[in-house]
Amino acid sequence: MTSRTESLSPEQIGLFLEPNLADLVTLMPDGYPQVTPVWIDHRDGLIFVNTAKGRQKHLNVLRDPRVAVIVVSRTDDYRWVSIRGRVTEVTTDGADAHIDAMAKKYLGKDVYPWHKAEEQRVLLKIQPEKITG
Amino acid sequence: MTSRTESLSPEQIGLFLEPNLADLVTLMPDGYPQVTPVWIDHRDGLIFVNTAKGRQKHLNVLRDPRVAVIVVSRTDDYRWVSIRGRVTEVTTDGADAHIDAMAKKYLGKDVYPWHKAEEQRVLLKIQPEKITG
Repeated sequence: MTSRTESLSPEQIGLFLEPNLADLVTLMPDGYPQVTPVWIDHRDGLIFVNTAKGRQKHLNVLRDPRVAVIVVSRTDDYRWVSIRGRVTEVTTDGADAHIDAMAKKYLGKDVYPWHKAEEQRVLLKIQPEKITG
Repeated sequence: MTSRTESLSPEQIGLFLEPNLADLVTLMPDGYPQVTPVWIDHRDGLIFVNTAKGRQKHLNVLRDPRVAVIVVSRTDDYRWVSIRGRVTEVTTDGADAHIDAMAKKYLGKDVYPWHKAEEQRVLLKIQPEKITG
């Protein structure tokens, strides 16, 4: 099976780099969509979401990598981008450093303040396949 | 098949009644989630989304009524509610009056300013089945 991929424009990438909140959609075992707010990042054409091992969204993408992400500008409801895409990598590599970078972006803090010893951070890397908005 | 349903708390209903933007997730024919920003309303335990006939979200819910909706407060990222639910009614009845009410809520205008003669408004009424946040 081949997947079409699409590339984000510089303006669309800007929406991911600004401290806008995004919503991530994953699929439950029965195919029902589940949606949660997430911090969001963009690197080298991929969308990054940082979550913790064992959370519903992590379990969902391990089973079905198809996701959707939407980000709307905090200051202009009419600036938004919605993508359908596929999680191409799920990794703990770099996930701790990345959540600190997200704390800097969203909270202005050098270190993620809610880290729990028992929690392992996981990076989901998403390849956009269809872009709208 | 029986569906479990859940009820929103008064505080959660407040998030739907305030002029917060929501995201609506529907399912494409291949089961892929699709997400778009929407104005949102709550009436008598149901979530209302106003769209236009023939749009992707309208076509999707006619085929598969399972949806997800998330609303995050504009002023506080940590106030949000996410639901999975089912579209129990798709109707043009009252849809024109409802889009005007939404224009009042979101734009402060008495009449929806982008009405097109060739466009028929449609109300999607959603019964929450699972609530988180």
